[in-house]
Amino acid sequence: MGLHAVVDARGQALAGRFTAVDHAQVTGGSSDRRHCPAMSDDRQTMVALDLEGVLVPEIWIAVADRTGIDALRRTTRDEPDYDVLMRYRLDLLAEHDLTLSAIDEVIGGLSPLEGAAAFLDELRDRTQVVILSDTFEQFAAPLMRQLGRPAIWCHRLVVHDDRIIDYRLRMPDPKRKAVEALHGLNYKVIAAGDSYNDTTMLLAADAGFLFHSPPNVQAEFPQLPALDTYDELLDRITAELG
Amino acid sequence: MGLHAVVDARGQALAGRFTAVDHAQVTGGSSDRRHCPAMSDDRQTMVALDLEGVLVPEIWIAVADRTGIDALRRTTRDEPDYDVLMRYRLDLLAEHDLTLSAIDEVIGGLSPLEGAAAFLDELRDRTQVVILSDTFEQFAAPLMRQLGRPAIWCHRLVVHDDRIIDYRLRMPDPKRKAVEALHGLNYKVIAAGDSYNDTTMLLAADAGFLFHSPPNVQAEFPQLPALDTYDELLDRITAELG
Repeated sequence: MGLHAVVDARGQALAGRFTAVDHAQVTGGSSDRRHCPAMSDDRQTMVALDLEGVLVPEIWIAVADRTGIDALRRTTRDEPDYDVLMRYRLDLLAEHDLTLSAIDEVIGGLSPLEGAAAFLDELRDRTQVVILSDTFEQFAAPLMRQLGRPAIWCHRLVVHDDRIIDYRLRMPDPKRKAVEALHGLNYKVIAAGDSYNDTTMLLAADAGFLFHSPPNVQAEFPQLPALDTYDELLDRITAELG
Repeated sequence: MGLHAVVDARGQALAGRFTAVDHAQVTGGSSDRRHCPAMSDDRQTMVALDLEGVLVPEIWIAVADRTGIDALRRTTRDEPDYDVLMRYRLDLLAEHDLTLSAIDEVIGGLSPLEGAAAFLDELRDRTQVVILSDTFEQFAAPLMRQLGRPAIWCHRLVVHDDRIIDYRLRMPDPKRKAVEALHGLNYKVIAAGDSYNDTTMLLAADAGFLFHSPPNVQAEFPQLPALDTYDELLDRITAELG
């Protein structure tokens, strides 16, 4: 309820102060702001964070470590075709008779990076947060419970009888698309991530930070400040809040 | 990181199973699904929940109760112009010299509705959740801490020297717009709310439920199932998960 009678019985048109809001704020327009620092920006804020490498360890590597299946260490650096790599991983899971439950137990035994949960709590006390990740929701679930159940938008595995039989990507370029959707909802977006699949998100955001990023990524994206501690990241994000 | 090398150095085009995903899923299209129950829908899911009346008490009423300022009980039923009502409320706060800190202390003394926090935890273990509310982020903050910091998209008060001097609505019709944005990100949206300002959200969602709703709203929207307990709501939502 709340504003219940601000709309009519068909739920139309909010009245009120909206008309006083600068139209440029409503329609977004981050790139304009980026080049016009004097322009006031009192939009509400949303922080978009990568998951693996930023808040938790790399999941497939951890599964390889814990299960002893070294072949699961193969990454897209070794096999650039993601579908070929995922088929290979799913075949390995089948070959070792690894159920989703068994993998979830392995993942549930992982810990978030030191300080990640406290960072995320503090950040959620200050503004809105969404984790944008290319992992799968079944892999993320045990880690999300340890992180206090933050919002995470990712992909999904296809599971039948506790066996992972396939996978589905929710959409192409999901991180950048999420930033655009949040701009459409009139949020100023502040983003942090560590690697290549984060860069479209970081560049689309109103403020983007590399975090825990390797030197080659930092070298290729010198326009993105590179940070390494949660304290630094919290300070830089806080400076961007309205 | 995760899919880091699935994209090239400029972060372009995810490879992989995406091409195998049904195009209708990617572009959304909830209304088609609504009329075609036999059509498979394995989209990932997002639950959109109203706040006041659904998870927590009505905030202005509670502030009136706790401060003894009966005039704050005035609602849009008494004053249909929302801006006039908000000016009246802000004037009352000024007149009683109520700082934001004082109001936050009052709100911090409120409890979520009985069972709300457990319901929200259980729901976040099963799928993604976002609270869509017409309250203000400063009022929501103390309640969000009690609810385990779920995601909430709402509006913002303008505060100067701990005094509420104005307010800003993030956008018009924000609940429906949020559902549309989530559809654009290929989520199936399941929504629940209690009153008129929820109905555009409930009707835009793939499944919409009235929850704790008054009889007049139920009578006007007979197409929306009306539920009253968290157990019922959890069951109905779970039945909609992919």
